[in-house]
Amino acid sequence: MSDQVNIAVDCMGGDDNASFVMPGLLLTLKKYPNIKFQLFGDEETIKSRISKYKAVENASQIIHCDTYVKMDEKPSIAIKNGRGKSSIWVAIESIKQGNADFMISAGNTGALMAMATLILKTISKIQRPAIAAIWPTINGETVVLDIGATIGFNKKQLIDFSILGASMAQIIFDVKQPTLSLLNIGEEEIKGLDEIKASHEILKSTEHFFRYKGFIEGNQIGRGFSDVVVTDGFTGNIALKTAEGTASQISKYFKDSINRSLMAKVGYFFAASAFKSLREKMNPSRLNGGVFLGLNGIVIKSHGKTDPVGFSSAVDLGIDMHKAALIDKIKSNIGVTEKEVNID
Amino acid sequence: MSDQVNIAVDCMGGDDNASFVMPGLLLTLKKYPNIKFQLFGDEETIKSRISKYKAVENASQIIHCDTYVKMDEKPSIAIKNGRGKSSIWVAIESIKQGNADFMISAGNTGALMAMATLILKTISKIQRPAIAAIWPTINGETVVLDIGATIGFNKKQLIDFSILGASMAQIIFDVKQPTLSLLNIGEEEIKGLDEIKASHEILKSTEHFFRYKGFIEGNQIGRGFSDVVVTDGFTGNIALKTAEGTASQISKYFKDSINRSLMAKVGYFFAASAFKSLREKMNPSRLNGGVFLGLNGIVIKSHGKTDPVGFSSAVDLGIDMHKAALIDKIKSNIGVTEKEVNID
Repeated sequence: MSDQVNIAVDCMGGDDNASFVMPGLLLTLKKYPNIKFQLFGDEETIKSRISKYKAVENASQIIHCDTYVKMDEKPSIAIKNGRGKSSIWVAIESIKQGNADFMISAGNTGALMAMATLILKTISKIQRPAIAAIWPTINGETVVLDIGATIGFNKKQLIDFSILGASMAQIIFDVKQPTLSLLNIGEEEIKGLDEIKASHEILKSTEHFFRYKGFIEGNQIGRGFSDVVVTDGFTGNIALKTAEGTASQISKYFKDSINRSLMAKVGYFFAASAFKSLREKMNPSRLNGGVFLGLNGIVIKSHGKTDPVGFSSAVDLGIDMHKAALIDKIKSNIGVTEKEVNID
Repeated sequence: MSDQVNIAVDCMGGDDNASFVMPGLLLTLKKYPNIKFQLFGDEETIKSRISKYKAVENASQIIHCDTYVKMDEKPSIAIKNGRGKSSIWVAIESIKQGNADFMISAGNTGALMAMATLILKTISKIQRPAIAAIWPTINGETVVLDIGATIGFNKKQLIDFSILGASMAQIIFDVKQPTLSLLNIGEEEIKGLDEIKASHEILKSTEHFFRYKGFIEGNQIGRGFSDVVVTDGFTGNIALKTAEGTASQISKYFKDSINRSLMAKVGYFFAASAFKSLREKMNPSRLNGGVFLGLNGIVIKSHGKTDPVGFSSAVDLGIDMHKAALIDKIKSNIGVTEKEVNID
C-alpha cells in the first residue's frame, strides 16, 4: 500500500469565499509532502486562487464542477440543484469511486451530511450517522457526539454513537480502551429521559472495547472527565454552541476589563505572553473540524468561519483518520460490541 | 396592605451546612428593614447560629422541624420521610397558609420542586412547573427556562413556559413587553424537534404580551439576544451547566497563564482591579437563584454552593417577585394569552 494520501477538497464551501482553503492546504502539504489534492469547484476560481500557492498547484488536480452549494441552502434544495454536479457531491463521489481517501469541506453542514449519507450510505448495522466534535478540556480533548446530525434520543443510536465515538477516540488519543460517558442531567430519579436510562443500563451491564463511566453533566465535559461524551444531535449542538458562546462572552469581558484603565493595559503588556497562550486555548480554529461518523467513507467538516490554520488542522485530522483506517476500525468494533449487546 | 414582607427560610438546605444563611439574611435585612423571617429547621442548630446575628434574630421567628431533606436524597424518599415535618415541607406550607409571602431554600432541588408542586399545585391552566435561571449576558441578563423541572418537549408546555418566563422578565427587567426566543439548533429544515416547530408556529402567528423573536442558537444566549429564552428542562439544564463548566474551565486557563511566569504575575498585579471586575462577572453567586414558576406561590431556589452574598441576592429576588405580585401577573398574562392561543 502506497503512503500517498489522496484528499478530495471542496473549494467552494465556507464563509469569506473559502479564501482559507489554499493557504490551509499549503500548511498541511508542508507537514505531509506525500499527499495529493483533488480540488472540486469552479475551475476559474480555483485557478485564480491556486497560482499563489505553487506547491499546492503541483500536488493538485482540478475537477471543475458546474455548481456549488450555498451556505444557507436547504439540504433538500441543495440535493435537487446539485445532485451529480455540485462540488460537494462530486467530491464525496470520488471517495466512493476509490479515488480519494477522504473528503473535506467547510461548506453547508446540512447539505454535506445529506449528500454524504445518500452517496456513501451508513455502515452496516449503524442506523444513523453522527458528527463528532473535538472539545477542548482542561486535561486535553474530548470527543463529543452527536453535535447535529441525528435529533432525538434512541437507545440503539446512543449505543451506535458510543461505538463510533470510541473508535475515533482510539485513533486521536492513541488509546486502546477510551473512557466514555453519557450526557445527562442530575437527580436521576425524577429526571433524565427514558431512552438515555435504557442506554445507560445496556452500557453498564456489558463489556465493550471502551470503558463506560456512567452519566456526566454539562459542567463536567470541559473537565475532561472522559475521552468520549455521547448525546443526541440536538443536545450536543446546544451544548457545543453554548460553550462557544460562553467563551466569546468571557473573551469580551476580558477585553473590556483590559481596555478600562491604563494600569490594566500596562498589566496586559507585562502578561502578554501568558495571555497569548490563553487566547490560543480559547481559539476554536485550533480544534477545528467535525468528523462525520457512521458512513462508508471519511468526511471532515471544517468550521465555515475558519482560517488557514484551522482549515489545515481539519485536513490533518482527516489524514489521521485515514492512516488509522477509521472505517475498518469501526466495523471491527461493531463486531466486538455486537457479541455483547442485543438491542431489540 | 402592609409593606412588611414575610419570608419562609429553610435553614437546613445547602452545602457547607448552610452556613451562609444567617449572614445572607443579615445582608438582605440591611437593605429591607421591614422584613420578617420565619426560620425552619432544627431549633438548636438555628439558635446556635443566629446568636451572632442579633438583627436577624430580632426579625425572626424560629419554627422547629424534626427532620430535613438531605442534599442527595431522592425526591420520593424525601417526601416519604419528610411529609408534614421536614423544614422544606413546613416552610412551603407557610406560603399556603398565608403566613409567608415566599419561601427560599438552598437545599435539594428535586425534593424542593416535588414538595412545592404537591403543596402549592400548579396555577390553573399551567400543566407543569419550570425553574427559571437568570443568565448573565454581555448586555445584562436573560431569563432562561426550564432548567430542570420538566423534561421533554411539548408544545403546550413551551407556550406555558413562555408566559411564565415573560411574566418574570416583566418584573426583573421592568419592561412591559419582554422579547422572547425559543432555543433550537440551526438548519431548520432537517433539524429541530417537531414540538419546537409547532410552538414556533403558534408563537409566530399570535399576539402576546411579549414579543416573539423566533429561534435562537446556544451561542446567542450569552449575547443577550432576548429577555427570555425558552426550552425544556433537559436542554436548559445541559446548556446552563455547560456554560458554567466553560466559565470555570477558562478561569482555570487564566490562573494557569498567570502563574506560569513572573512577568505575568507582575502584569496581573497592575491589572488587578480590571481582573477583579472580570472575576465578579464570572462569579455565579452574583446571579444566584432559580425561580420556581407556575405554582400557586413563590419559591426561590438558591444555589447549594453559595456564599452570604449569593444567598442574600436570591432572597432579594424573592422580595422583588413578591412586591411585583408575580403570581397575579402570571394569572392575568395567562388570561391575555388564552384569548389568542388555542392549543388542542
